[in-house]
Amino acid sequence: MMTGPKIKELRITPIAITDPPLLNSVGIHAPYALRTVLELVTDDNISGISEIPGNIEINSLLKQTEQIVLGSDPFHLNQLKSALFQQFGDQQSDTRGDNPWDDRKLIHVYSALEVACLDIQGKVCNRPVVDLLGGRCRDQVTFAAYLFYKTIGAGGVLGHGTDPNATGWAQARQAAAETPEEIVAQAQAMCKEFGFKSIKLKGGVFPPEEEVAAMMALSDAFGPAVPLRFDPNGVWTVETSIKYGKQMEHILEYLEDPTRGQQGMAAVRKALQIPLATNMCTTSFEDIPSSVALDSEDIILSDHHFWGGLRASVELGKVCTTFNKGLSMHSNSHLGISLIAMVHMAAAIPNLTYDLDTHYPWQSEEIIEGGRVQFNQGKVEVPTEPGLGISLNRTVLSQLHENYLNSGLTHRDDTAEMKKFYPEWEFQAVRW
Amino acid sequence: MMTGPKIKELRITPIAITDPPLLNSVGIHAPYALRTVLELVTDDNISGISEIPGNIEINSLLKQTEQIVLGSDPFHLNQLKSALFQQFGDQQSDTRGDNPWDDRKLIHVYSALEVACLDIQGKVCNRPVVDLLGGRCRDQVTFAAYLFYKTIGAGGVLGHGTDPNATGWAQARQAAAETPEEIVAQAQAMCKEFGFKSIKLKGGVFPPEEEVAAMMALSDAFGPAVPLRFDPNGVWTVETSIKYGKQMEHILEYLEDPTRGQQGMAAVRKALQIPLATNMCTTSFEDIPSSVALDSEDIILSDHHFWGGLRASVELGKVCTTFNKGLSMHSNSHLGISLIAMVHMAAAIPNLTYDLDTHYPWQSEEIIEGGRVQFNQGKVEVPTEPGLGISLNRTVLSQLHENYLNSGLTHRDDTAEMKKFYPEWEFQAVRW
Repeated sequence: MMTGPKIKELRITPIAITDPPLLNSVGIHAPYALRTVLELVTDDNISGISEIPGNIEINSLLKQTEQIVLGSDPFHLNQLKSALFQQFGDQQSDTRGDNPWDDRKLIHVYSALEVACLDIQGKVCNRPVVDLLGGRCRDQVTFAAYLFYKTIGAGGVLGHGTDPNATGWAQARQAAAETPEEIVAQAQAMCKEFGFKSIKLKGGVFPPEEEVAAMMALSDAFGPAVPLRFDPNGVWTVETSIKYGKQMEHILEYLEDPTRGQQGMAAVRKALQIPLATNMCTTSFEDIPSSVALDSEDIILSDHHFWGGLRASVELGKVCTTFNKGLSMHSNSHLGISLIAMVHMAAAIPNLTYDLDTHYPWQSEEIIEGGRVQFNQGKVEVPTEPGLGISLNRTVLSQLHENYLNSGLTHRDDTAEMKKFYPEWEFQAVRW
Repeated sequence: MMTGPKIKELRITPIAITDPPLLNSVGIHAPYALRTVLELVTDDNISGISEIPGNIEINSLLKQTEQIVLGSDPFHLNQLKSALFQQFGDQQSDTRGDNPWDDRKLIHVYSALEVACLDIQGKVCNRPVVDLLGGRCRDQVTFAAYLFYKTIGAGGVLGHGTDPNATGWAQARQAAAETPEEIVAQAQAMCKEFGFKSIKLKGGVFPPEEEVAAMMALSDAFGPAVPLRFDPNGVWTVETSIKYGKQMEHILEYLEDPTRGQQGMAAVRKALQIPLATNMCTTSFEDIPSSVALDSEDIILSDHHFWGGLRASVELGKVCTTFNKGLSMHSNSHLGISLIAMVHMAAAIPNLTYDLDTHYPWQSEEIIEGGRVQFNQGKVEVPTEPGLGISLNRTVLSQLHENYLNSGLTHRDDTAEMKKFYPEWEFQAVRW
């Protein structure tokens, strides 16, 4: 009987990363986004890392998994998953929730453990993680520019850490963006810096006609060679989605989550000639059968943090191929560990041919050695080094952990943040 | 840029293995079943092996893949698959065919290459193949007794190489089996030898009432603790399937392919209270959407040889979980390489909880070192050695290759074999 390395240590480091005041349908990003960095170390001192959205419950659950994780074999992921779901899977409150992001704890925790274990596996095998997922289908992974509205009404720029000497994208990142012209300026600065060749705008912030005007301005500014996507963040009615969707039919690559729920999406899809994408209406394998039955979306926006890891995302790719759905990728505010994990995964999925979403341009810090990941023409090179091919910069990690401790934040709560500036603000699940 | 081993050699060895005269709906097994053994060798002399159903076209196609395989990285399976399907995927004649077995060439060829590459990967990583598929969900894989009718009418035992001194299962394997009593005797001898705890009978040979009588006799002899499965091999009408299916509702774990085609299966399924399984009506990912839409089967019988390898079979497992279908496994006459590949794969699929089909008891030869794979209580241990954990016995391999050259066989043709004894025999796609 061959015995391999066993996990002897699990280190959880909550961090708070500087985040600009980006607007969405529930409110506004707080000055810090919470992430959690996981390190697993084997008894022969091989370490694997991962990064997930962090909050106090996720961190607590991650800590509780120690009883199962310690002593386990980093290759035995099926056993680990089964043990975790047996032990912690009956928590009734572990639902996706009403937020635009996914609030399930266990699936995030498992994805953190899986990615760190795959990092270890790659180091043991002396192969990049992508090779453990079937091998690369491409040498670079292409990302899209992800635009956001910033500030609302007369509030001015709700930011912090503004640098008056910033230039280029660093300057543009600080700027307000409410009008079509400002959105175009944001896009131009971001595309210039990162070389993105496709563009998405997060909407659901201003009345539909204003947001449609911004999309039209982007179309005018960038022309038909640059695919455009628009995401009303689920707060439009079916009627609004159809009305404004029709106006954008000739300019959109896809329309993302115009309305909430598969039934509504199916109704919108029947009425429009453009593909619909989702990361709010179909967000787990349990949602797939009704998505297929209703024909509610054309494209699933995967996210390994809430689809259960990299292998599950590859499996989602196969499900999408089987049912003739497209696959793209969702993101939340994140640093380089998540980015590089996304790159390994996207490289291994044959049908992941849409440019991926990433918030990465909005972040300025980095916890991996070598600093910020480089984009060339909107693309990131698929690593060839063993495992994820990255390592932690412990100095920065400590600083961002200090940020976390000092921030006083325990959860992402964009609505509460918005209320600080606009006390009358209330989230409305259906706004227009 | 890390560089790994590259494949420098591809060895194809067609073999003919002794096969008893087993009956099915199209005819009878020839005295030899054709298999093809593939060896891939890397430039650092790591070799990987696999075994697939062999025929002259499959062997020819496998040989043609040399141009793509040589020089490729055994970890880059997505690239390999993509290149193969680009180069050879447009062969219009590459269909499943009307036989009960799957006649597609390219998918068999890819599965041979994939399994051999995974064997190499495991050796490179010093881990068993199961660990590259997500790790074991179980330490043993459980198989079912697979019963066959032998001889038909007044033909006597249509066999060769009969040993008058054989005892136990070796003796029973030579015996005729036409009546319910003879089928029960076959089951008892096989279960005694291998410890199987569940039983399947391949039918579609005799009129339904005779085959139902055999199933009833098995139920009487083994009692309710032994799950029973029955496979009319697709030659019953919907009406016949419902009529005789109802008679067996109280004794069957599942009814396999009573009729051909998803529409017919769906009609049968609506009328019966027992699960339907298939390896004839839903046999590829392309078949899944209509299977889901029609609700034509409860259980897919996977087979890595025609679902595109071990990873694709794991993905099929996820598709089945997602759509609340069960998963079990189909087999053809095979030796230990296929058996052990099945074991690695079945160990890695969480929902593969049905006992697996195997023809292995019907074969007497073995090309792997150490001889015949041992069953304990119907179970095979999941290997812990690197790769598949087996190696070739080249002496036996040469002997079985000689058998192939001497056999004059180029294809499996159970109908032609039947005609040798019963010239008036014709295959009927729908017989009863």
